[in-house]
Amino acid sequence: MTRVLVVGADAAGMSAAHQALRTARKNGRELSVTVLERGHHTSYSACGIPYWMAGDVDDPGDLVARSAHEHLASGLDLRMGTEVVAVDTAARTATVANGEVFAYDELVVATGAPAVLPDWALRPDGTAYAGVGTVKTLDDGGAWLERFEEAGPGAHVVVVGAGYVGVEVAEAALRRGLGVTVLTRTRGMGMLEDEMSDLVNQALVDAGVELVLGAEVTGLELDGDRVTGVRWDGGTRDADLVVVSVGVRPATDFLRGTDVPLTEGGALRPDPHGRVADGVWAAGDCCEVRRRIDDAWVFRPLGTHANKHGRALGDSLAGGSLSFEGMTDTSITRFAAGGQYVEIARTGLSRKDAEAAGLDPVVLVTEGSTASGYMPEADPVAIWVMADRATRRLLGVQLVGGRGAGKRVDAAAAVLWHGGTVDDLAWMDLAYAPPFATAWDVLQVAARRVAERI
Amino acid sequence: MTRVLVVGADAAGMSAAHQALRTARKNGRELSVTVLERGHHTSYSACGIPYWMAGDVDDPGDLVARSAHEHLASGLDLRMGTEVVAVDTAARTATVANGEVFAYDELVVATGAPAVLPDWALRPDGTAYAGVGTVKTLDDGGAWLERFEEAGPGAHVVVVGAGYVGVEVAEAALRRGLGVTVLTRTRGMGMLEDEMSDLVNQALVDAGVELVLGAEVTGLELDGDRVTGVRWDGGTRDADLVVVSVGVRPATDFLRGTDVPLTEGGALRPDPHGRVADGVWAAGDCCEVRRRIDDAWVFRPLGTHANKHGRALGDSLAGGSLSFEGMTDTSITRFAAGGQYVEIARTGLSRKDAEAAGLDPVVLVTEGSTASGYMPEADPVAIWVMADRATRRLLGVQLVGGRGAGKRVDAAAAVLWHGGTVDDLAWMDLAYAPPFATAWDVLQVAARRVAERI
Repeated sequence: MTRVLVVGADAAGMSAAHQALRTARKNGRELSVTVLERGHHTSYSACGIPYWMAGDVDDPGDLVARSAHEHLASGLDLRMGTEVVAVDTAARTATVANGEVFAYDELVVATGAPAVLPDWALRPDGTAYAGVGTVKTLDDGGAWLERFEEAGPGAHVVVVGAGYVGVEVAEAALRRGLGVTVLTRTRGMGMLEDEMSDLVNQALVDAGVELVLGAEVTGLELDGDRVTGVRWDGGTRDADLVVVSVGVRPATDFLRGTDVPLTEGGALRPDPHGRVADGVWAAGDCCEVRRRIDDAWVFRPLGTHANKHGRALGDSLAGGSLSFEGMTDTSITRFAAGGQYVEIARTGLSRKDAEAAGLDPVVLVTEGSTASGYMPEADPVAIWVMADRATRRLLGVQLVGGRGAGKRVDAAAAVLWHGGTVDDLAWMDLAYAPPFATAWDVLQVAARRVAERI
Repeated sequence: MTRVLVVGADAAGMSAAHQALRTARKNGRELSVTVLERGHHTSYSACGIPYWMAGDVDDPGDLVARSAHEHLASGLDLRMGTEVVAVDTAARTATVANGEVFAYDELVVATGAPAVLPDWALRPDGTAYAGVGTVKTLDDGGAWLERFEEAGPGAHVVVVGAGYVGVEVAEAALRRGLGVTVLTRTRGMGMLEDEMSDLVNQALVDAGVELVLGAEVTGLELDGDRVTGVRWDGGTRDADLVVVSVGVRPATDFLRGTDVPLTEGGALRPDPHGRVADGVWAAGDCCEVRRRIDDAWVFRPLGTHANKHGRALGDSLAGGSLSFEGMTDTSITRFAAGGQYVEIARTGLSRKDAEAAGLDPVVLVTEGSTASGYMPEADPVAIWVMADRATRRLLGVQLVGGRGAGKRVDAAAAVLWHGGTVDDLAWMDLAYAPPFATAWDVLQVAARRVAERI
């Protein structure tokens, strides 16, 4: 009987746990799986929390894909509120906060990446000031709903950070009738090229968001321990609430001092089967992922990678051969509030990535339409396409546009997955009918224009 | 000076003509282009006509991508109302209906494929009975708008044929307040597998369409020369109007007797550059296209192929190297009327195609959601996935579902284009955020389930 100990009961951990049991059953292997979760929830959708805050989701239970009860029913041993504080990889034991020691044969690290709270957000006791918080856990979501309710319409929210979560929270707050300021150290939406992030910025501003670019937050204004404003290097803003969405950090402190290698940022780098060291496996937000296009390790804490890598890990753990062969750096969101609606998507390298990889990128932004121009479904879309001059290889695609723009990125992601060229993207057989596309899909017009410039 | 004579001024012909001029300019070649069009319109969207009939488009001029005037401005010689009736490929001349003879160096056949009217629809003089017609040209569209107007709400339309056009016309008629019967010889939507076409049939019926499957039309009921009903092998139906959408046929009669090879159905089979014979080129609906997956020639008269092949042809004609490397049999439409909304898409082989190619297909239908289940955007979708048992190669994907279902087919089309496996589809990096997908995109869940069965 192989004893598998999984640390963390969200997407990666639970995908691994269930797949390990399935594969073991199929292969006739004896396997026991124990899952330790330091929080109070399993398998919840962190990505759904902004939509719960916005009012799209009524019951936070809807964000839970599988409850602890459901997990237990499939033969797992699941311990909630149980935090691993130390691991001895030689003895193959894990010690939890209350001192209990778990012996294992195989350890699966799926501890995720909690949201970062900078020093300026913290009271001397290390907790956030009243009215200040992050957006990561179900508890965070519940706290924000209470704060929104308490503050009431017309109250003002400052969102620090303009990544995916920042933009999604700005949408939620506007839709709840709150005033919104977004502060970002960068030009906004740092995962997009400047010319594309400008389009998102415009939508935010048009929706009534006060957007401050290049703003480094230096501290809070306080009334007692309650926030009343935010200071940055260029100004101040009164605020009833402050949402901090400046990133996440791998929860791997308990591995420091073991032989499990960590990056400077504390991330793990598992192989396609999830192995990180002898008897130790990892997947999900505590890991970096391999980007196929330039074979680079990057930190992309996204549920879709966590699910895939977790599943491959679980299968491999039980003698299967599934593997997670990296990703192409695809992501998507939208901003829908204040009369604005934009879908935002990207896949592949940034221009900076391409130059760092020694490539010679050819880049162009094309404007077009999501449907035939005469159809009511036609919405404008801007598409940034980058290809390599020497090999014509497609390197990256970014889209900002109306309904139907965003998921077009998937066709480009498929070309990147296969190492295809910008000509493949331009000439392959995408679906056309007037409500859905122009006769040359706008993605293909954009690719063709880049192809013509090489 | 090379004299290029293009026959047909729609998607393929005009793509070829303009690209030939552009490439010639770039390459410093002397080229004159004359275009002969037997009709009165250039470069119009036949695909848009059902939406004009439905009321989405007010001005038929919106369906014209480029008018004759605009074409002339780019240096073409364009003759409207000029039908080629004979070609002498040895002498390199084309004779038009009024007897005029055009000498050419290179002939481009882009004559398209007019809609078929069966004998039962025709008066002794060869024209359709009053109230009966097809849906192909702008003139057809205008005639239908007049007939709809004249018949008034509550009138009854019988649509013969349940392909893309049949379903789109059923939508248009319902949205105009007409009663609709659809008769089809098959199970409906013959380009879909039965289990998928059943879903479309259900939507039609739920929208109030009277749908008769397996009905072979045998004749019309007439009052004088005006239709009053339709007879088929199993019954009759009173009708004020009869839309015939049973297919199209290549307009290549003027090539019979020349050395240009035609298929039994009268289609041309151009190479990737558009060549069909010495000095003769062809593209668009008068041609078959090569399906990459099984290397089969198939008749798929679609604007997207016409545009691509026309462009490659025009470039090649003027010394360029663009080529149309076939297609993967992708298509899409929707049915949106009577409270129903379904998107319908397919790419790749049918089960019958796969078996004819000697493959051993593994097939499964998966039901899922277009967005995370807790989001208001979540709509049901059914996905049919087929892969080859021996090689795991993806062979085909079909989708029927709500908003956002249809264009998902593009990601599958990209995998087919690259000759990828069902595992590529299952594991590649598709975009995830709650308004757009589940963490494993439903397309990937469907692919994974097939992968697990191989």
